[in-house]
Amino acid sequence: MPYEIYWGSGSPNAWRALLALEFKGLDYQSRQLQMSEREHKTPEFLAMNPRGKVPVLKDGDTIVCESLAILAYLEAKHPEPPLFGSTPAETGNIWQRVCDFTSYAMEPMLSLTLIFFTGKAAGKAGEAKSLALDVHRELASIETALDGEDWIASESPSAADVVVYPYVACLARALGMKEAQPLALGFLPLAENYANLAAWMAHIEALPGFDRTYPPHWRK
Amino acid sequence: MPYEIYWGSGSPNAWRALLALEFKGLDYQSRQLQMSEREHKTPEFLAMNPRGKVPVLKDGDTIVCESLAILAYLEAKHPEPPLFGSTPAETGNIWQRVCDFTSYAMEPMLSLTLIFFTGKAAGKAGEAKSLALDVHRELASIETALDGEDWIASESPSAADVVVYPYVACLARALGMKEAQPLALGFLPLAENYANLAAWMAHIEALPGFDRTYPPHWRK
Repeated sequence: MPYEIYWGSGSPNAWRALLALEFKGLDYQSRQLQMSEREHKTPEFLAMNPRGKVPVLKDGDTIVCESLAILAYLEAKHPEPPLFGSTPAETGNIWQRVCDFTSYAMEPMLSLTLIFFTGKAAGKAGEAKSLALDVHRELASIETALDGEDWIASESPSAADVVVYPYVACLARALGMKEAQPLALGFLPLAENYANLAAWMAHIEALPGFDRTYPPHWRK
Repeated sequence: MPYEIYWGSGSPNAWRALLALEFKGLDYQSRQLQMSEREHKTPEFLAMNPRGKVPVLKDGDTIVCESLAILAYLEAKHPEPPLFGSTPAETGNIWQRVCDFTSYAMEPMLSLTLIFFTGKAAGKAGEAKSLALDVHRELASIETALDGEDWIASESPSAADVVVYPYVACLARALGMKEAQPLALGFLPLAENYANLAAWMAHIEALPGFDRTYPPHWRK
């Protein structure tokens, strides 16, 4: 029986799980939930994840919630190709990058993104500018890590890339919205301000199966 | 050469790394930093961790920052006894508990703890009571996970126990302070309100080497 993955279009954490499944070349059944219909709050879904959050991975009788746990589970079941490196030093470095991102970068990036995705830019210029300072600091650190490198933490794509990419992609999309332009937050065009990051995004987007992970509602 | 672990007394994240080293029975050199002397902000320390945070693990030329990355690194180098389980299902379950804690429980627990550790209870009764609601919800979930079990996520001690314990221990100590009593937040005595959690703490505290991880300044 293939994996079943429950996700929502544009959820960055769910996107991580889809990228990991594709990266490992695994067969899976896509269970896209319509968040606007609150399909992540049905009794059936809450029985799998009481927090009502995506992603959720179902593997027969085994249920795994939380995106990083799903990555670790897939790695334990299918060690090749590795998402968490092949040596202890690689494993440590990849997890360090993952934790560094989730501890310091993820929240300001998501908060800044949501200001535009939720159409609240008008009343939140000051908050956006303050968040942008934090986000610039964190993206600068990733930009440096990518100096002369194709991937964030390893010679090949790793969990660090899978964990970071969806948040950068969501932020870039949010910053491209009309409402973001007057704030001149200094991110776009990414290829000018963060050349390594822009090149890295193109690498991720060229990975086999990437298209199947792309948020369907972004195509409209 | 043994590991070198840089830590600060009472830092819950650093405590995780010490517990993991003891759990795996590893030889290590303790590098306790005096945070009050800002020894975590010296040029030498910032060269290892630009964020100036503990714990940092040094293994020859390899430096690992971020507590979860240190746990994953030690697991990759010394798979036995396992911190992240022996089967993919165990690994997934342990990481799920770890991520669930870091995503939802850690922040309110730390914020509530710091209100008392920083002596600011007088002006923050409302904030403390609001945080206490979140913390009760999260502790109740752990209490349920411990029903009939000795450990949070596995038959034997795992990363989930190592990750959660220091935060619960710090919170319990904070709630035992005189300033916390008038707020009657409903946690203590833990053995009455959270019997499983209290028994689980005693299990952790009976592990070999636990005493070496205990915050020195708490003994005074």
